Amino acid sequence: MSLALLINDWDVAAWQKSLAQLAPDRAFQTAPDITCPEDVRYALSWKPTPGQMAQMPNLEIVFSLGAGVDHIFGDNQLPNVPVVRVIDPDLSVRMSEYIVLHVLIHHRKQRVYDAFQADGKWKEISQAAASAMRVGVMGLGILGIDAALKLKNLGFQVNGWSRTAKNLDEINCYSDADGLEEFLNQTDILVCLLPHTPATDGILNFKLFEKLSHDGPLGKPVLINAGRGGLQREADILSALENGVLGAATLDVFETEPLEASSPFWTHPDITITPHNASASDPDTILKNVLRQIEIFEAGGTMANIVDPVQGY
Amino acid sequence: MSLALLINDWDVAAWQKSLAQLAPDRAFQTAPDITCPEDVRYALSWKPTPGQMAQMPNLEIVFSLGAGVDHIFGDNQLPNVPVVRVIDPDLSVRMSEYIVLHVLIHHRKQRVYDAFQADGKWKEISQAAASAMRVGVMGLGILGIDAALKLKNLGFQVNGWSRTAKNLDEINCYSDADGLEEFLNQTDILVCLLPHTPATDGILNFKLFEKLSHDGPLGKPVLINAGRGGLQREADILSALENGVLGAATLDVFETEPLEASSPFWTHPDITITPHNASASDPDTILKNVLRQIEIFEAGGTMANIVDPVQGY
Repeated sequence: MSLALLINDWDVAAWQKSLAQLAPDRAFQTAPDITCPEDVRYALSWKPTPGQMAQMPNLEIVFSLGAGVDHIFGDNQLPNVPVVRVIDPDLSVRMSEYIVLHVLIHHRKQRVYDAFQADGKWKEISQAAASAMRVGVMGLGILGIDAALKLKNLGFQVNGWSRTAKNLDEINCYSDADGLEEFLNQTDILVCLLPHTPATDGILNFKLFEKLSHDGPLGKPVLINAGRGGLQREADILSALENGVLGAATLDVFETEPLEASSPFWTHPDITITPHNASASDPDTILKNVLRQIEIFEAGGTMANIVDPVQGY
Repeated sequence: MSLALLINDWDVAAWQKSLAQLAPDRAFQTAPDITCPEDVRYALSWKPTPGQMAQMPNLEIVFSLGAGVDHIFGDNQLPNVPVVRVIDPDLSVRMSEYIVLHVLIHHRKQRVYDAFQADGKWKEISQAAASAMRVGVMGLGILGIDAALKLKNLGFQVNGWSRTAKNLDEINCYSDADGLEEFLNQTDILVCLLPHTPATDGILNFKLFEKLSHDGPLGKPVLINAGRGGLQREADILSALENGVLGAATLDVFETEPLEASSPFWTHPDITITPHNASASDPDTILKNVLRQIEIFEAGGTMANIVDPVQGY
C-alpha cells in the first residue's frame, strides 16, 4: 500500500524529495505517474486533477497540502472518504506576514513614497495614526484570527466578520448577513480570508464594496484578498476602482490561476498582485504534519482537522 | 512671558494652529519672527536654527517636538537650561509600523514581486519562514524595544544591541563593543534606531556592514536606518551594495536633509528612501504632552524625560 502525491501548480520535486527523506519506509507514487492506482491508500493533494482519485479503489483518506480544501472538493468524482485539512502554525505565521505587510503598505502610503522617490521628490504627506484606521477581517478561522490579533498588536482598530458567530476576547466580531453591513460600514481596509464555499462564492462584489467606509483616513476603502479567487468578482473590482468605490486592491488569488496574461490587473496602477504565495506551504513542515496524522490513524486514533463535507471547511 | 515655536523643515502652520487651540491663554512667538526674545521662557523646538536660543536671556526649558535631541544639541551656543525629550506612545506606534513594514518588504521579497508584476510574470520564489530570519535592532530605547517586540510577535528571531547593557525578558540583548561583533554576525536584517551622539556618529560604516551575516535566508544582509543620518556613512552604503557586502537598504534619514538631488540613492535599484517620515510627530499629541510638562514645572513638580547632556539622550 502506498501514498500518492497529487500536486498541480507547485514544484512537485521539492515534495518528492521531502517525502522520501521524511518517510523512507513508505512507498509513494507521484501524479501523473500513478502506475498502480489500486495501491494508493492516502492521497496527499494540492489542486488534484479531477477524476484522478476516482481511479483509486482502496483510497482511505485525502490530505490537503495547503490552506483550504476547495481545491479538493472541486472534483465532482471525489470518493466518499475523509478529507483532512492541514493546520500548521507555519501557515498562519506566513499568512499574517502577508496581511500585515499589505495593510501597512496601504496605511503608510508606501506606493506614493515609491513614486516620490522615482520622481526625485522629497515630500512628506499626512499620515493617520493606526488607531484611526479600521481594518476589517472577513473570515475568522485560524488564519483570520492570527492576522487580526497581529494587526491589533500594531495599534489598528480591528473588527472581524464570519458567517457563523464567533466570540473573541480581543476582536469585535460580527456575523451573518445582518452583521455584514454594520461591519462593512466601519471598514477602511478590508482583509478577506474566507474559505471558498457555495455560500461565499463571489461575495467580494460591487454591492459589497459600496458598503465599505468612504470617510476613513485613506478616503477610499482598500481590498486585500488572500482567501480564494472564487470569492471575488474581478470585473467588479475594476469598475469599483474606476468609480472611486475602491481606492486600491492587493490580490493574491484570482478567478483563474495563473492570472491570464490578458488581465488588466497586471498593469493597473492601483492593483498589487502576487502569485498565490501569501502562505506558501513548506514541504517538510506540512509532510511531517500529514505523516503524524497517518500514524495516529493507523494506530486506531482520531485524526485532527477532518473536514465537514457539508460546510466545506 | 511666552512660548516660542522654533521649527525648521516641518509645516509650522499646523503647529501654530494646534498650539493656539490647545493653549489659548498662552502667548507664543514663531521663528523666525521672534520679536521679543526676552519674553521667551519655553522653546518648543525641531531643528532650531543655531544661535537662536542664545538670544533668549530668560529661557528656562527647551522641549524637543520630535524623536531625539541631537537636533537641539547641534547648536553650539545652546543655553545651559534643561532639555526635555518627547516620549509619546504615538511615536513608538508609528516608528514600529515603519520598521515592521520595511522588514516585511525585504523578508517577503516584495520588490521582486513588484518587478514580476511589471514584467507580467506569474512566478513564485522560495520564501524563508520568519523563524529563520534574524533581525537585529540597534538601539534599545523606547522605540527600539517596541519595534523589537512587534517583530518578535510576527515570528522573527530578534536580537538587540545597545551601547549600555539592557536586560529584556523577551529579547536577547548585546551591548558595548565586545557584544557588537557577536550581534552583527547573526544579523540578516539590521534595524538602526540609535540616538546620534559623538559615540555613535558614523557607526553604520563599511567595516560594520562586513560583520553582518552573509549566510542568511536573503544571502546578503539588509540595512534599515530610521535613526539619524549622522549614524551612517553614505559612501560606504553605496560601496557595500556594489561589493555585495549589503544586499539592500531602506533609509529614512540622511547625512543632509532633504536628501540632495544629486544623491545616487534616488535611483539606486536596491535602495528605498523615505523623507524622514518614519515616525511623524502629530502636533496635537506632542503639544498636549509638552503643555502638561510645563504645568508640572510651573506647579513646582519634576518633569519627566529630562535629557542627560553628557550622554546626549
